[in-house]
Amino acid sequence: MAVRAAVAGASGYAGGELLRLLLAHPGIEIGALTGNSNAGQRLGTLQPHLAPLAEHVLQETTSEVLAGHEVVFLALPHGQSAAVAEQLGPDVLVVDMGADFRLRDAAQWERFYGSPHAGTWPYGLPELPGCRAALEGSKRIAVPGCYPTAVTLALLPAYGAGLAESEAVIVAASGTSGAGKAPKPHLLGSEVMGSMSPYGVGGGHRHTPEIVQNLSAAAGAPVTVSFTPTLAPMPRGILATCSAKAGPGVTAEAVRAAYEKAYADEPFVRLLPEGQWPSTASVHGSNAVQVQVAYDADARRIIAISAIDNLTKGTAGGAVQSMNIALGLPEELGLSTVGVAP
Amino acid sequence: MAVRAAVAGASGYAGGELLRLLLAHPGIEIGALTGNSNAGQRLGTLQPHLAPLAEHVLQETTSEVLAGHEVVFLALPHGQSAAVAEQLGPDVLVVDMGADFRLRDAAQWERFYGSPHAGTWPYGLPELPGCRAALEGSKRIAVPGCYPTAVTLALLPAYGAGLAESEAVIVAASGTSGAGKAPKPHLLGSEVMGSMSPYGVGGGHRHTPEIVQNLSAAAGAPVTVSFTPTLAPMPRGILATCSAKAGPGVTAEAVRAAYEKAYADEPFVRLLPEGQWPSTASVHGSNAVQVQVAYDADARRIIAISAIDNLTKGTAGGAVQSMNIALGLPEELGLSTVGVAP
Amino acid sequence: MAVRAAVAGASGYAGGELLRLLLAHPGIEIGALTGNSNAGQRLGTLQPHLAPLAEHVLQETTSEVLAGHEVVFLALPHGQSAAVAEQLGPDVLVVDMGADFRLRDAAQWERFYGSPHAGTWPYGLPELPGCRAALEGSKRIAVPGCYPTAVTLALLPAYGAGLAESEAVIVAASGTSGAGKAPKPHLLGSEVMGSMSPYGVGGGHRHTPEIVQNLSAAAGAPVTVSFTPTLAPMPRGILATCSAKAGPGVTAEAVRAAYEKAYADEPFVRLLPEGQWPSTASVHGSNAVQVQVAYDADARRIIAISAIDNLTKGTAGGAVQSMNIALGLPEELGLSTVGVAP
Amino acid sequence: MAVRAAVAGASGYAGGELLRLLLAHPGIEIGALTGNSNAGQRLGTLQPHLAPLAEHVLQETTSEVLAGHEVVFLALPHGQSAAVAEQLGPDVLVVDMGADFRLRDAAQWERFYGSPHAGTWPYGLPELPGCRAALEGSKRIAVPGCYPTAVTLALLPAYGAGLAESEAVIVAASGTSGAGKAPKPHLLGSEVMGSMSPYGVGGGHRHTPEIVQNLSAAAGAPVTVSFTPTLAPMPRGILATCSAKAGPGVTAEAVRAAYEKAYADEPFVRLLPEGQWPSTASVHGSNAVQVQVAYDADARRIIAISAIDNLTKGTAGGAVQSMNIALGLPEELGLSTVGVAP
Repeated sequence: MAVRAAVAGASGYAGGELLRLLLAHPGIEIGALTGNSNAGQRLGTLQPHLAPLAEHVLQETTSEVLAGHEVVFLALPHGQSAAVAEQLGPDVLVVDMGADFRLRDAAQWERFYGSPHAGTWPYGLPELPGCRAALEGSKRIAVPGCYPTAVTLALLPAYGAGLAESEAVIVAASGTSGAGKAPKPHLLGSEVMGSMSPYGVGGGHRHTPEIVQNLSAAAGAPVTVSFTPTLAPMPRGILATCSAKAGPGVTAEAVRAAYEKAYADEPFVRLLPEGQWPSTASVHGSNAVQVQVAYDADARRIIAISAIDNLTKGTAGGAVQSMNIALGLPEELGLSTVGVAP
Repeated sequence: MAVRAAVAGASGYAGGELLRLLLAHPGIEIGALTGNSNAGQRLGTLQPHLAPLAEHVLQETTSEVLAGHEVVFLALPHGQSAAVAEQLGPDVLVVDMGADFRLRDAAQWERFYGSPHAGTWPYGLPELPGCRAALEGSKRIAVPGCYPTAVTLALLPAYGAGLAESEAVIVAASGTSGAGKAPKPHLLGSEVMGSMSPYGVGGGHRHTPEIVQNLSAAAGAPVTVSFTPTLAPMPRGILATCSAKAGPGVTAEAVRAAYEKAYADEPFVRLLPEGQWPSTASVHGSNAVQVQVAYDADARRIIAISAIDNLTKGTAGGAVQSMNIALGLPEELGLSTVGVAP
Repeated sequence: MAVRAAVAGASGYAGGELLRLLLAHPGIEIGALTGNSNAGQRLGTLQPHLAPLAEHVLQETTSEVLAGHEVVFLALPHGQSAAVAEQLGPDVLVVDMGADFRLRDAAQWERFYGSPHAGTWPYGLPELPGCRAALEGSKRIAVPGCYPTAVTLALLPAYGAGLAESEAVIVAASGTSGAGKAPKPHLLGSEVMGSMSPYGVGGGHRHTPEIVQNLSAAAGAPVTVSFTPTLAPMPRGILATCSAKAGPGVTAEAVRAAYEKAYADEPFVRLLPEGQWPSTASVHGSNAVQVQVAYDADARRIIAISAIDNLTKGTAGGAVQSMNIALGLPEELGLSTVGVAP
Repeated sequence: MAVRAAVAGASGYAGGELLRLLLAHPGIEIGALTGNSNAGQRLGTLQPHLAPLAEHVLQETTSEVLAGHEVVFLALPHGQSAAVAEQLGPDVLVVDMGADFRLRDAAQWERFYGSPHAGTWPYGLPELPGCRAALEGSKRIAVPGCYPTAVTLALLPAYGAGLAESEAVIVAASGTSGAGKAPKPHLLGSEVMGSMSPYGVGGGHRHTPEIVQNLSAAAGAPVTVSFTPTLAPMPRGILATCSAKAGPGVTAEAVRAAYEKAYADEPFVRLLPEGQWPSTASVHGSNAVQVQVAYDADARRIIAISAIDNLTKGTAGGAVQSMNIALGLPEELGLSTVGVAP
């Protein structure tokens, strides 16, 4: 019998991608859809690609509307999830696709978000050691950020196997959907097509402390992170180019072996054959993660690169994967590793 | 029990899209994959988005390799399908995604393709009157061209209801995957990004006689077609802008009514609500067709516009839809109307 | 001695392109720059590509600020130009890049713009018969719309030589800069990349009456126009695919000859050699117009296609070209036919 | 009196961009154009954006054809320049836009190019200390690679002022024109649109030793470089994200001051105001370099980012700038800092 799920924030890109996945999920029945500024509108106007839901009308995000669902997904601006979750009660599975419950360190939350810390929920990155166990049966899930997902899965084997020194340098390129659907001048098609540009340079991006948290957990010791995000002229996808100094005595073979071991049994992460490199097009619309690694003997650095779809594995697909675990369903249910390419 | 399907020509864009769909099709088991110039290569190298098939190795396109399958899809250059089909025998369902068996008029074939006509197979556009019946139980299917699919579905209600005069003017924009995967200078990313350009202007495109055939069938009388294809800076999608002079006494209401009636029960064709226009992004990766129509009272023309994904409904999805009918499966099995957007 | 020019509306795309051209114009000295909602801001923030003007600060659009210039360019929302022009006095050359003074028929203006007609100024399309003479010494110029520029130059020889019947069918694809810099959801990069979509279908686009006016002038008789604009995934460029039924006895040779004759001496319009087709990339950033024509003997239609840069020849370059004529400068001064490609 | 210049390799992207610039250069008269595989073809077919040169016919690259020019530009595949240069004699200014004469270390050349080292010519990056003096009056110029230009100008002030430690980590995104015009499957528009992917990872890219050479020269001591290039879905532009650990006691203010001082008088390099970041669109088609720098106090790294047009400042514009110096012309002659945007 299908589980009934509501989506709060169904008019944005994260909500739309989630609905695309839920429509194909055999264990889920789509219930209430909300979206405050767009309440009263047909979904067909706001998300014309979701043909089967075209006649659904968005409602206000209230506890009455969200009541009566076994799963509630929150795709809300940060700062709003705690209040909604509280009203839903402890028996409803609440999956927060926002940032509110990702960080364990309240001081870091306050530094980067400028508001009181709401708490910490089980973290929805099953590939990170310990996460699967914490997700099983959980009624709360904090879905990781898109950049932290890509970066963590690129560097996890290197830190997990103790091969990398404690300073990571990361440059990631993201498609524009990561910046959301609210119209801003610098996100106009006229501005982004044909252009690459950085933002949040110098440690200011809000995903930085989440990356630090994950890599430090993997390493079992504090990792320092230099993270530079860039905006790429494509709607979707993240390519994360990550590197760290190799520890003493590390060899290319040891690096390769660590990556092969780490991802041998992961259903969604694929270490590519040597010589083949990730591309965001290959994982477009899929929950797959492509990973490749090289050892630069001159620079003595491990270069690990991952490609994900920021809306799928980076947001909505990651949410569904963790939901499956929390509900006791097969982890891969309703998810695919097949990209829509070219 | 799953039907076993082989794909001849699995390394190109049509073959790749077909495999993407077959991987999600509950009634199909993927068998032999062939590709002459790429025989011996792993599919993971050629189609890195098809992760579950990465270790499949392409074979030569021989009758031995293709034997033992209940369905064989042909994604071959035109002129090669007849010889392969002959060797497969009459009990195998052969689905030709090429042009060889689409045209009924041998003279038109010879004029546009410059080679002897191979024959005519049941035409795989179920929405065209009479096609579904001809496909049921058929062992041969000629999958329509991508432009003819888009154009026919845009103008079918106008001609079917006798509202349009006999001269149609069509300008269609296609993504670059329609031009195939063989590298040519004018298809380089450097050339196509940021550029729109026409080709095959003045009636020379090979899809012209197929469009004429379909519209004439719909009208029950000869239709003249002016067809101009253009190359758009996107990987996928066709937007077909089609118009014809309205017949005497035609009104906007009559046009709307004809379109509503024509597509009320079609699972893949959706007449959009008034005021909403098709976009190729909305049908990206889906088998859906978005259609909209307007009546220009000043110019006395019916303007009908459709959007499809050229690789899905325009090629591989159309092939699967017709295969389902031929095999007696539900027509929508394994196909989706949900696009991957943004 | 350089002529001093002010630009009202310097923060938008038309204003920015105009400044790019004026910076390279040997006869112009750039004076006041205004932009109401952005007054007080450095141009370097708003137009980072105009490095030499980075420290210029935008002012309010007032008659005091605009005083003391021999040329004033208006890149304002429609409806605002008349009031500004009035204050500038009859001796200042006022070049309106907006729509206010393009149409001669007040009823058409009111139908399409819903406001009182402000009047008609000499029309800045020098290639249109009679326009050069009217521009010489004029103190007022109405710069044509981008679509009318592309469409008129595609069909002018056919109508001018009496080869085409009176109904034209036009489908044009435009880059997104044509829609301006005001952020709207459907213009986000996430929405437009990978997508083609139509708008203003059925005769509703405001450039329709201007196209009718031009083609009728060329033909010397009323021409009916079916015009469908589409939005293409590129920042700049218009590809206009235009066709009309050929008159009795028209031949391919006659069509070719008419086009060759019409554009033999035009500095910015280039009829391409037979077999070569226009592309918007080839005219990117240039004032050039690429034109090609074909005769479809089956459909008995003349297919004429033009490519322009909507911001250059379609707006700011056209403005400079007409200004040169009005000021008695060489028509090509400061303008180039060299595109920035690839 | 204009200097007569020939271009060997006029059919490719570098040659085409050079011709675009030379057409606007008041001191140059364009002479012979060669292109071996395309000899005999009209330039209008190969470079349709260069309208004024459309009727020029490409010749074979022979010493007879290249004789009688005061400047000869070589845009040839690496390994061919030495033989051509030898035939031209010592009084002709030979500007090599290829790699042959860039590296001083023969062992590095042989390691990365697998062929004997041809020698070293004065290096055409005027902003690098000592280069202007070496270029004055020189008859030989080695134009830098596109990535080394972007990377060197990003990090030069940090190393020049002794602020950065000796290990640099660089991730750069390039438009596809950097990969040239020879058609290869992975460069098809269908493949690159919507996709980011890395290549030459782990130190293998041939621009790596050139970057090492430049940064070591700036630092006055060996610098180790980790360089990862990525292919971005745009025709032009390089965004280079470069970082290095800050030396002891370095502050944000010291970093800013060093960058302001380094570029105060450079005509083509512009340090952006604080808070504004480079974008490749802003320098599209221009010889400008946008640079910005940040100090990440958490990671103790200097993050320097530059944007250039790979074909202009990164190749042909850099060539013209150095040619101007060699010929004793004003360094900025014929070059612009104005980008073509949006």
